[in-house]
Amino acid sequence: MTLTTASKHVCCGGELGFYTVQSEALGLPTTFGVFIPEGASKDKPVPVLYLLAGLTCTQDTFLIKSNIVRFAAKHGIALVACDTSPRGANVPGETDSWDLGVGAGFYLDATQTPWRAHYRMGTFISEELPKLVASQFPVDLTRQGICGHSMGGHGALVHALRSPEKWKSVSAFAPIVHPAAVPWGEKAFTAYLGPDKAAWAQHDATLLLKAGHTHPTTILVDQGDGDQFLERELQPWHLEEAAKAVGQKLTLRRHAGYDHSYWFIQTFIEDHMNHHAKILKGV
Amino acid sequence: MTLTTASKHVCCGGELGFYTVQSEALGLPTTFGVFIPEGASKDKPVPVLYLLAGLTCTQDTFLIKSNIVRFAAKHGIALVACDTSPRGANVPGETDSWDLGVGAGFYLDATQTPWRAHYRMGTFISEELPKLVASQFPVDLTRQGICGHSMGGHGALVHALRSPEKWKSVSAFAPIVHPAAVPWGEKAFTAYLGPDKAAWAQHDATLLLKAGHTHPTTILVDQGDGDQFLERELQPWHLEEAAKAVGQKLTLRRHAGYDHSYWFIQTFIEDHMNHHAKILKGV
Repeated sequence: MTLTTASKHVCCGGELGFYTVQSEALGLPTTFGVFIPEGASKDKPVPVLYLLAGLTCTQDTFLIKSNIVRFAAKHGIALVACDTSPRGANVPGETDSWDLGVGAGFYLDATQTPWRAHYRMGTFISEELPKLVASQFPVDLTRQGICGHSMGGHGALVHALRSPEKWKSVSAFAPIVHPAAVPWGEKAFTAYLGPDKAAWAQHDATLLLKAGHTHPTTILVDQGDGDQFLERELQPWHLEEAAKAVGQKLTLRRHAGYDHSYWFIQTFIEDHMNHHAKILKGV
Repeated sequence: MTLTTASKHVCCGGELGFYTVQSEALGLPTTFGVFIPEGASKDKPVPVLYLLAGLTCTQDTFLIKSNIVRFAAKHGIALVACDTSPRGANVPGETDSWDLGVGAGFYLDATQTPWRAHYRMGTFISEELPKLVASQFPVDLTRQGICGHSMGGHGALVHALRSPEKWKSVSAFAPIVHPAAVPWGEKAFTAYLGPDKAAWAQHDATLLLKAGHTHPTTILVDQGDGDQFLERELQPWHLEEAAKAVGQKLTLRRHAGYDHSYWFIQTFIEDHMNHHAKILKGV
């Protein structure tokens, strides 16, 4: 598989690059960002944290706005940030709204026409991208963590609960914890997965927990109580109740006044990096 | 003067807001960002650091991309970030190129028609904005520092050298140190200040130093040696030579491999915040 370098920068002593690849899962070119900390090499591969951004974002957003690179550099952990949807699928209406289609792939594989041809971020994240990254960069495929924001928080939780052997650590900022029961999720899942709600359960962190899909580590979630989407779209209490019911360890922190923005994320990002470092590096 | 709040966010324990005001200097509305750290109050005003961004940026860019807020919060220092030009002046051709007009105000007052009606970022930065900020926020007008990037580095150096009594500390990332002698500066100065180069000297850090305008503190400058604009537009050796000639204290650090981007800035931002804190807080 051939990577094209879109840009490359020295940052915090390491190397941060954006690369484009013709994705098999997506059937389209897609661009992703990778940060490799100083000292990593084929002989000394490092753990890697995947970053999933929210609605309307791109592969740039989490890396540049969250302040995370400095802490990844400090811990000697690589970062990977992918796009939030395929680009150029040309599905009719895919750019009509900001919460469906372009910028809103929900990190799953669509099963419905016309989305299913290209809207396959699920396989891209879980299979193709990790293999690709591990083949091209000095990262350790056995020490992968995943973190996301909002729609990306949904993605991080769902992927970690479905494949805990693949994602060794997980955290989220203001995640959509129960998409099957809130407007953003209902709209996306109806389009991508069809009206049969039985199919939705595999893509809903709360329902996955209830069905017994747990993660062996503590899940870290931060949520601002001034978040404009808290009541309508996020509803973190569903995750809390489900985790309690099945004995899933969960640290859900509520922060007075904080909203849904990267101003919130950058405030608490160091704690998330520490959380992942502790698990991935065993320190 | 009435401020309209565009947005307000809790960040790093403090409050980060964007505000719009009808500027007298610009004759137009303009938006700026302010970060007030936790604990600041009218009774306990804090020092304040002004941030000047580079070509094509807005009031958002430096604040969200540089990682500076966390360090301002740590030091208890306020931040102010303005736009890079007036918006809505409707000067013919002002959006035709990215290095003149909109996004390229060069932090000076234009003297030439048709720019001079609104392109007056010089007075806005040096007079109007500090008074406005000090009247509305708990900041100490006697402890102001200034920092900028690229075109904003030019602005920071020029304002500090012209008014050291107003700007108590100064630093820059990859500044245009000698605009009168490089393409970006020649293009902008010809348009804004006219062909007579005598008028340019007041807006050129190298020429100001040579004319005896020094700053009582050490000027901190960081420059990447992988910067794509190094040879053509930045030429930091002019500043070094002029500083040496007049006895200006200057710390000019060159960093192997770093380019012109915010990936470079975020790597070294903590050092700049420490530099300003040391001077503004006397620690």
